[in-house]
Amino acid sequence: MRKFVAENSRRVLARSKYLAAVSQRPTASYSHSPCSQKSPPHYSPVSLLRFLSTITTPADRSSTETMASDYSSTPVQIDTINPKVLECEYAVRGEIVTLAQKLQEELKNDPGSHPFDEILYCNIGNPQSLGQQPITFFREVLALCDHPAILDKAETQGLFSADSIERAFQILDQIPGRATGAYSHSQGIKGLRDTIAAGIEARDGFPADPNDIFLTDGASPAVHMMMQLLIRSKKDGILCPIPQYPLYSASIALHGGTLVPYYLDEATGWGMEISELKSQLETARSKGIDVRALVVINPGNPTGQVLAEDNQRQIVDFCKKEGLVLLADEVYQENVYVPDKKFHSFKKVARSLGYGEKDISLVSFQSVSKGYYGECGKRGGYMEITGFSPEIREQIYKVASVNLCSNISGQILASLVMNPPKVGDESYESYSAEKDGILSSLERRAKKLEEAFNSLEGVTCNRAEGAMYLFPRIHLPKKAVEAAGKANTAPDAFYARRLLNATGIVVVPGSGFGQVPGTWHFRCTILPQEDRIPAIISRLAEFHKGFMDEFRSTG
Amino acid sequence: MRKFVAENSRRVLARSKYLAAVSQRPTASYSHSPCSQKSPPHYSPVSLLRFLSTITTPADRSSTETMASDYSSTPVQIDTINPKVLECEYAVRGEIVTLAQKLQEELKNDPGSHPFDEILYCNIGNPQSLGQQPITFFREVLALCDHPAILDKAETQGLFSADSIERAFQILDQIPGRATGAYSHSQGIKGLRDTIAAGIEARDGFPADPNDIFLTDGASPAVHMMMQLLIRSKKDGILCPIPQYPLYSASIALHGGTLVPYYLDEATGWGMEISELKSQLETARSKGIDVRALVVINPGNPTGQVLAEDNQRQIVDFCKKEGLVLLADEVYQENVYVPDKKFHSFKKVARSLGYGEKDISLVSFQSVSKGYYGECGKRGGYMEITGFSPEIREQIYKVASVNLCSNISGQILASLVMNPPKVGDESYESYSAEKDGILSSLERRAKKLEEAFNSLEGVTCNRAEGAMYLFPRIHLPKKAVEAAGKANTAPDAFYARRLLNATGIVVVPGSGFGQVPGTWHFRCTILPQEDRIPAIISRLAEFHKGFMDEFRSTG
Repeated sequence: MRKFVAENSRRVLARSKYLAAVSQRPTASYSHSPCSQKSPPHYSPVSLLRFLSTITTPADRSSTETMASDYSSTPVQIDTINPKVLECEYAVRGEIVTLAQKLQEELKNDPGSHPFDEILYCNIGNPQSLGQQPITFFREVLALCDHPAILDKAETQGLFSADSIERAFQILDQIPGRATGAYSHSQGIKGLRDTIAAGIEARDGFPADPNDIFLTDGASPAVHMMMQLLIRSKKDGILCPIPQYPLYSASIALHGGTLVPYYLDEATGWGMEISELKSQLETARSKGIDVRALVVINPGNPTGQVLAEDNQRQIVDFCKKEGLVLLADEVYQENVYVPDKKFHSFKKVARSLGYGEKDISLVSFQSVSKGYYGECGKRGGYMEITGFSPEIREQIYKVASVNLCSNISGQILASLVMNPPKVGDESYESYSAEKDGILSSLERRAKKLEEAFNSLEGVTCNRAEGAMYLFPRIHLPKKAVEAAGKANTAPDAFYARRLLNATGIVVVPGSGFGQVPGTWHFRCTILPQEDRIPAIISRLAEFHKGFMDEFRSTG
Repeated sequence: MRKFVAENSRRVLARSKYLAAVSQRPTASYSHSPCSQKSPPHYSPVSLLRFLSTITTPADRSSTETMASDYSSTPVQIDTINPKVLECEYAVRGEIVTLAQKLQEELKNDPGSHPFDEILYCNIGNPQSLGQQPITFFREVLALCDHPAILDKAETQGLFSADSIERAFQILDQIPGRATGAYSHSQGIKGLRDTIAAGIEARDGFPADPNDIFLTDGASPAVHMMMQLLIRSKKDGILCPIPQYPLYSASIALHGGTLVPYYLDEATGWGMEISELKSQLETARSKGIDVRALVVINPGNPTGQVLAEDNQRQIVDFCKKEGLVLLADEVYQENVYVPDKKFHSFKKVARSLGYGEKDISLVSFQSVSKGYYGECGKRGGYMEITGFSPEIREQIYKVASVNLCSNISGQILASLVMNPPKVGDESYESYSAEKDGILSSLERRAKKLEEAFNSLEGVTCNRAEGAMYLFPRIHLPKKAVEAAGKANTAPDAFYARRLLNATGIVVVPGSGFGQVPGTWHFRCTILPQEDRIPAIISRLAEFHKGFMDEFRSTG
């Protein structure tokens, strides 16, 4: 019994320390600062991480605390786990999503229990969960590779396109023993890497080497691998955009490094200023941080901007000059919606500037989850690593080997998206129609939602030039900020929670991505099906008006 | 130029330090100690890890060193990467496999260049790479779920079994929006977890909760997640069997913990003695190591033993008493080949002893890569976690969320292997025939190879009661050990390399798994197709005789 009491109090103590730490926000975050300001108030990487973490502090701490006490005789307690795990946060599936799942369950059990009849998940870039249909050709090839026994059957001709059958045969020929159920080479099946390399060459106009490709289960494990390679301790820093996709902050936290933030400039359409990069790099270095790499997300997540080629050149030169690895998140490379912008890979930009393999270290991440295909559940992706010595590549290969290989369906799909049907192939026309239909619809949805946000009182929203998100800024009334403070939550999380409870729409508070302190945003995907956009917009507008009325009146 | 010289010398210096570290083997490893000895010489976890690492030191260091110098202006050098990555080793895809891939390439380009015409990969449990055919029903369901558009077509009835079509419909109904291309819940699709939990219940006779299941891309990521949760620093230890599957040493190294070895007793069929566990635990504790968990691999890898239920009870009691998490690698649960042994899950054993959810912390790992299905390339698997408080589970959920979800095909397959066709289903007969054919053939192959190894001079081999491996001990002549020393390689690696060069057969040296110092082994899978076993055995026997003759003569 004595042991129980001692253990329990130790745990409660640690827990309150933890809560104190996560609720300690930089005071600057409540002061109002215009988004156009060029030098946003710096706050330390540690406080930034703490700040990011506030948003996902589970709502039902007190209930889990009570329940936890029953587990006092089990060996693992919250104060004895890896603190890096505690520190890591991932708002895209954080508190708001947990609440949404709860509401969904309630709706299922009691359909009239909320003022809406379904939950609309706009928190995550997950197109097929909102009704987007997969590209037929891709799925035909995957099905045939899963069950090659039917390839020679007569009925198969009636069910599958001729070029999907041909492609399946080609792919099986590239797999040793045609064994789609075997572990592959740790980097992925060589023949598929050849196809991907050819696809990169066709895209960029510069050579690509299949030995530079590491196929992975989506892009996330690839990002983790690079963080694992680069981060030795808290003294190692990774420059990340703010706002950023929280995979980066999570991965840096899990690997024990320091996130060095650089701010995108909302006033210039989330512009990426070299002066800002430089100033943050110098600040970090002056604190003894060894900055190893620069993360660039292009097209941007959560911001949706597409970098201008000239800006990319400056970034490449900056990395070269400062000795930084350029980690280029290019998973939205096929999601560009405006005629005045075009995707350029950083490798193409670097090669165009004359930087060769041994001049600059560059990693490009690509995924089958995004683009027009949106095959998130297939967990396919790759990284192309260039500018690393053979001995470093050997280390990367070794880490890849520990997990044996990525899933073969994902590998096949990655080769398909980098080598889709061509003019003359039987599937080309239907494939093109499906692809163009999805991309042009996404463009229209982005435009409509952007206009809708901009029409709301106190909301400004940059255009979604690319990716799958809008990141509107909400100028919250003082009274709303105070109410959030009383509820011990970030003001944008307060807004998002109210939005969810009133409309069933799930968005992610800007504090989950980071933002200039004192500004508030949320990320909303452009993915709900097009015919539902008008209803969503009116639900949003009605909620927002009510919210502003409630807090304006006494503000 | 000055910078180049300085950087280069710094790198060469670090490299030589590294080489010095990895070549520093415990001297005990060369002394001969009988395998029956009950208390093997202890060597420290650090020296063990160093020792494990010797085996995969790449052969062509000097050439990569020369090449590396060209990369002197890139930011990442071997002495500036995460030292945990350097420390991690994974022999299953180490030096010998790299050599095998080289020989395979040479054979392709010049078919007569070696005294064999193909490479036989017995290094890894990868059944389909050696010709094992997938289970038809599983692949039918996967193909239909990949391309649900054909489910209603008339031709589909002619190509697929009725129950595979029905199962595909059932599974699709369990997936929100029938979207197999969407990210799922971070733990995996709820309906599939229900199926898996029901399968566990049917297996064990004790309840299983779908909320305890985390679906993962094979078992490896699940093991990493648990190591990540438990390991805070080098002061945290994980008890691992020696010999062990090197995923564990690799994962512990990558997460910066300490491997606390316990030795399996070769003389008693790789018995697991509680006295040995206790002694190693106490030794580690006396050195200030906080031992967090015990890894048990049952059936054993690389050793192939199946634990007796009584032994499992002792292990459960030991974990309970000592406050250790029991990490149970149960991926070979369907691979048992002897009538006197049966697989019992540790959860079943714990529940039979009366330990409930809040009494003991237990994680069971399962994979679709093993069993009779051997679907390695699908990367499906799960862990069932019991005995963790809600607040700890919340942390595990968060880490799972950072990678969004495991691949859906792998999730579906995991549900299928835990709920295969039943008596009365259209596919039942063919399914049973395929399953029994594979398992009985594996049993015969295990037996034949075991007998063959035992017939070799100086080789002793425990029976493969389960799993997919034999781990014969080779009593190497003194002269062979000396020759290995001169070649700066471990004696069993020396043997494995000679075996490969002479026969094309790829095995993994015992030093990659750990072994009692002074004993030498190799791991060989039982997976080559049955009709090829006699030829393999005679190649092996011929090589072994020649090897012994060569080194005996002057030994």
